[in-house]
Amino acid sequence: MLSFENDYNVGAHPKLLQRLAETNLEPQTGYGLDDFCAAAKERIKLACACPNAEIFFLTGGTQTNQVVIDACLQRYEGVVAAQTAHIAQHEAGAIEFSGHKVLELPSHDGKLCASELKAMMERFYGDDSHEHMVFPGMVYLSFPTELGTLYSKTELTELNEVCRAYALPIFIDGARLGYGLMSKQCDLTLPELAGLCDVFYIGGTKVGALCGEAVVFPRGGMPKYFLTRVKQHGALLAKGRVLGVQFDALFTDGLYFEISKNAIDRAEEMKAIFREKGCRVWKETPTNQQFLIVKDSELERLSKLVAYSFWEKYDEDHTVIRLVTSWATTKEQVQQLRAIL
Amino acid sequence: MLSFENDYNVGAHPKLLQRLAETNLEPQTGYGLDDFCAAAKERIKLACACPNAEIFFLTGGTQTNQVVIDACLQRYEGVVAAQTAHIAQHEAGAIEFSGHKVLELPSHDGKLCASELKAMMERFYGDDSHEHMVFPGMVYLSFPTELGTLYSKTELTELNEVCRAYALPIFIDGARLGYGLMSKQCDLTLPELAGLCDVFYIGGTKVGALCGEAVVFPRGGMPKYFLTRVKQHGALLAKGRVLGVQFDALFTDGLYFEISKNAIDRAEEMKAIFREKGCRVWKETPTNQQFLIVKDSELERLSKLVAYSFWEKYDEDHTVIRLVTSWATTKEQVQQLRAIL
Amino acid sequence: MLSFENDYNVGAHPKLLQRLAETNLEPQTGYGLDDFCAAAKERIKLACACPNAEIFFLTGGTQTNQVVIDACLQRYEGVVAAQTAHIAQHEAGAIEFSGHKVLELPSHDGKLCASELKAMMERFYGDDSHEHMVFPGMVYLSFPTELGTLYSKTELTELNEVCRAYALPIFIDGARLGYGLMSKQCDLTLPELAGLCDVFYIGGTKVGALCGEAVVFPRGGMPKYFLTRVKQHGALLAKGRVLGVQFDALFTDGLYFEISKNAIDRAEEMKAIFREKGCRVWKETPTNQQFLIVKDSELERLSKLVAYSFWEKYDEDHTVIRLVTSWATTKEQVQQLRAIL
Amino acid sequence: MLSFENDYNVGAHPKLLQRLAETNLEPQTGYGLDDFCAAAKERIKLACACPNAEIFFLTGGTQTNQVVIDACLQRYEGVVAAQTAHIAQHEAGAIEFSGHKVLELPSHDGKLCASELKAMMERFYGDDSHEHMVFPGMVYLSFPTELGTLYSKTELTELNEVCRAYALPIFIDGARLGYGLMSKQCDLTLPELAGLCDVFYIGGTKVGALCGEAVVFPRGGMPKYFLTRVKQHGALLAKGRVLGVQFDALFTDGLYFEISKNAIDRAEEMKAIFREKGCRVWKETPTNQQFLIVKDSELERLSKLVAYSFWEKYDEDHTVIRLVTSWATTKEQVQQLRAIL
Repeated sequence: MLSFENDYNVGAHPKLLQRLAETNLEPQTGYGLDDFCAAAKERIKLACACPNAEIFFLTGGTQTNQVVIDACLQRYEGVVAAQTAHIAQHEAGAIEFSGHKVLELPSHDGKLCASELKAMMERFYGDDSHEHMVFPGMVYLSFPTELGTLYSKTELTELNEVCRAYALPIFIDGARLGYGLMSKQCDLTLPELAGLCDVFYIGGTKVGALCGEAVVFPRGGMPKYFLTRVKQHGALLAKGRVLGVQFDALFTDGLYFEISKNAIDRAEEMKAIFREKGCRVWKETPTNQQFLIVKDSELERLSKLVAYSFWEKYDEDHTVIRLVTSWATTKEQVQQLRAIL
Repeated sequence: MLSFENDYNVGAHPKLLQRLAETNLEPQTGYGLDDFCAAAKERIKLACACPNAEIFFLTGGTQTNQVVIDACLQRYEGVVAAQTAHIAQHEAGAIEFSGHKVLELPSHDGKLCASELKAMMERFYGDDSHEHMVFPGMVYLSFPTELGTLYSKTELTELNEVCRAYALPIFIDGARLGYGLMSKQCDLTLPELAGLCDVFYIGGTKVGALCGEAVVFPRGGMPKYFLTRVKQHGALLAKGRVLGVQFDALFTDGLYFEISKNAIDRAEEMKAIFREKGCRVWKETPTNQQFLIVKDSELERLSKLVAYSFWEKYDEDHTVIRLVTSWATTKEQVQQLRAIL
Repeated sequence: MLSFENDYNVGAHPKLLQRLAETNLEPQTGYGLDDFCAAAKERIKLACACPNAEIFFLTGGTQTNQVVIDACLQRYEGVVAAQTAHIAQHEAGAIEFSGHKVLELPSHDGKLCASELKAMMERFYGDDSHEHMVFPGMVYLSFPTELGTLYSKTELTELNEVCRAYALPIFIDGARLGYGLMSKQCDLTLPELAGLCDVFYIGGTKVGALCGEAVVFPRGGMPKYFLTRVKQHGALLAKGRVLGVQFDALFTDGLYFEISKNAIDRAEEMKAIFREKGCRVWKETPTNQQFLIVKDSELERLSKLVAYSFWEKYDEDHTVIRLVTSWATTKEQVQQLRAIL
Repeated sequence: MLSFENDYNVGAHPKLLQRLAETNLEPQTGYGLDDFCAAAKERIKLACACPNAEIFFLTGGTQTNQVVIDACLQRYEGVVAAQTAHIAQHEAGAIEFSGHKVLELPSHDGKLCASELKAMMERFYGDDSHEHMVFPGMVYLSFPTELGTLYSKTELTELNEVCRAYALPIFIDGARLGYGLMSKQCDLTLPELAGLCDVFYIGGTKVGALCGEAVVFPRGGMPKYFLTRVKQHGALLAKGRVLGVQFDALFTDGLYFEISKNAIDRAEEMKAIFREKGCRVWKETPTNQQFLIVKDSELERLSKLVAYSFWEKYDEDHTVIRLVTSWATTKEQVQQLRAIL
């Protein structure tokens, strides 16, 4: 069946599978200390223009958020995030499981607002009893956000300034980083983004890999004994090579950006179709996730022809659904969707 | 370089890579709800002769131990294990990270002894102040053990009887399960092993997969909302299909057992070479891990020719090293080792 | 200096000190298994009209919230609370420290609204991906609230109905329970309140004791091995008698209610003075906490004459302060405050 | 009934109750920021000859162990302790609850041995895979130990030297500190003990207080935001004055030492009686805990006349019991015990 359910509904980009096959029987040391991980790190440093970056490969998004946040925070600190943030909503409490509170700020189309962050920090330190409260110890934001939106360079710079003033590290969840960077609306390069945060990750799972996220500390400063902490979270892959080989391939000849662009191009085609067909759009976004409002009666027909994901109930007899393109979406699939709508 | 460093030093069995390639572009739902996971579960149920089994695929060994133990225990309970157990020594405190104590019993070549377990339980409940102590809530054992040894059917049955008396579930860490089952010394079948425990896992990472462990609750009773708990641990793979496809292949036409047998056959050849060469054996085991005592001066030469793993210092000028075969070890590689020794 | 800073600014009611002195040298078993705890429990059961209640004495409020919530929740569950709840704001993340998320709902003068709770539960179970979210496992509310307000019998009954429908236990934080029950606005008796929740605590620290909170499971159902869980939280007092003696005294001859009423009477006098003096009231409440808006210039003078607590900045040059009466506040002290204002 | 059950079976020294009564109605700020806590800290600094000490008052022993260990350790570190240590056996897993492993070393009459500690550290850092293990991050010892024994100055100095070499802080659990310092066998003064560790606590609960332990960082270095961390553990007492007043009294005119000496004197009398009566001694100790081996048949009679505590089964028909003196034990009570034996 045709599927626009999400951006992890198929396997890996063929070049990654090919590299896995080619390197399959070369013996390597485990736990990410292999040659492929080393090579992949060099390529990523180049792509980020961060020669002093420290990099670690993890397996999935929630795991990465949990490990990075827990490793960077002091025990008495929490992480600031938008109410719609993945860590606040859809990670089954993985942050709290490791002992930290998610300190929520309002979501503006999925984004944090620098002035609200500043006000929060002023309120916190202005409160006589703040030692009885959770200390804000890090700011989490996603690029693109969970709603497919993007921070502009100005917005990110403003957040960065507030964070600098309070010595708050910024962590960017880049589960869909490629789709953000290749969006027409994006005015940030990868090196610029790396320069505006303290740690971020380059999503592989949703951008062409079987699994894998590359955590990047752009100017170093990876928490001490990070490998031990990763292991303690149950997140250390014995065959770290699996991640290394894939990221090595993704960052060879710009593959990561090329396949990310495919998702954006297909999303643009999809948006054009929505306009053409007069679909009721809930949120049109500059990236690979698009949202429609559909009558529940119509939804029944649709669900037999195309896989989508339920977003939320809109009202009594309408539902918001999400349609997602990816590195693997073809022009043909978009045309099939057109025929269905 | 020749490597007997461990059983996760190469990629996956070619049939698994092939199946990953063949199924690569079929869209599937995420999080282990895909068709491949479903098919793999059916094959595993058959292999275990457990039609009511409940099965979940996780990524790695420490992760599996942490998730299963935490999900099965009450908050005030700990897990009983041998002092040499992987969870007691080499998981960076992953069990304690999730709040549970590892209650250690002496190791007998890596194994627990039923009478010592019984004595521990009697002592615990005989102690007036046991409500001030950690309740033993589960017994963890590994098959094969971390030292390459195996429980006999009698030993496992005795442990099982003590556990039944105290309503203690038994959890078997089967990271190397295939190598145990195919050992010449093993007098247990997979269905028999499944019948003597409450939950176990079938190791994939060390037996032919890129990654992946299959957690099996042989008679059902998987903890409620297990998926949520897995997610909370950061252990839920978006592309669960990656694990499903691989286990489906491993349990097609007995591949898992066939490749496990290869490791055992190569280990037997290796043991013969040790005898022939008069090597000083620290521990000869019935499975795929063998241990030698080597002079430190000799070790320097050796380390340039073959990768092994450091086990422990034996004395001032000797070291215990571990040499490991796997599903991928060839007769040629064993002969090369012979030439070196 | 005159102090209306809070309701824990002096020691204990003299009758409690006297009882501590009288019983001081009687040897007793530790950990709450003493005769005084037993006697106090009987008196509390009577006061609550709950003959099957199970009761445990703890030391302080945050500790009690942490222990009760953690002991009652499954690991994958969180606790629903108003945004202004003590557990959401002023407990330094004690709930998250034990692994649970506080699921916030809007605060209506410190209170939860039954229809919003219902909507939250419907949204949760209506969401296809709710297994990726934190399960609401308990509802926390405070009586009186952190803002000094009270639930009416109707409001509490409505919340109770929603909770019954979703099998959600209700936990009432009664750190200031006496002040709530003795308020003129209160239309609930202690037995009625006990009947409308699943667990609550009777605050001692703020109502006449040196320390101590009595956790009451009105119809039984205290979590198994509760003593062990309390110990695990570091919350088990060796000399449990200290709590038992005090609660025994508090529930002898209605002392708890009598001294609670004193705080209410003094608060009513204070409110009359505010009206007489034309003070700018931020929030007038039916219990023992009152809130004023004061010019910052005026505050400087005030702070030399009377201790109050900072609540929040109102605007550029005004501050909200809190003035609190307690079981110990005298008519003379209120008159002194009058002279100062 | 006559009770030698433990050293927390009665209330507080009368002078402490008197001070609580005298100071009862003086308004004070909460959370340990009151004048009494301040005064008590000054007295303790003097007694320890540590003018730069940082001090915090907590309520009970397990709580103190949990808070101090968790606050001082990094997340990936565990605490080294003897197998018989209170934290290893009788705290219901409170250390693991906060995420840290207790790394056990053999107990020599309750004590750690410096050479075994050194060997453990050498083994740890000599192990190639130590980043997969729990890092030893602190050494815990109790003075006196759980078995009533004492470290000599030499023994403590040797441990200290090993710890210095590995930058391992030493934490001394002084739940019964006074009884150790006043023992005839003790060759350490309080300032000397303070000089040989990094943090310790002065037990109040077992030495004359209703509750309370004084945590001392003798040369400063209290973990940042310690109050917040205490609160996060649910361990912050609102009426911190209760602890301050008591420790102020205990350290006025040497009361702490004087009443500690009483326990030792009574224990010496008890030991003389055991010799006189030919009691079978399991362990004779230099402090206030003594252990006898008693026939089970005889125990039945005994248990009706005197409260003791069960220690462990000795063999089929004998039991080890513990008899404990305290600050409150009188000569008359010891003579009554003599009559019974």
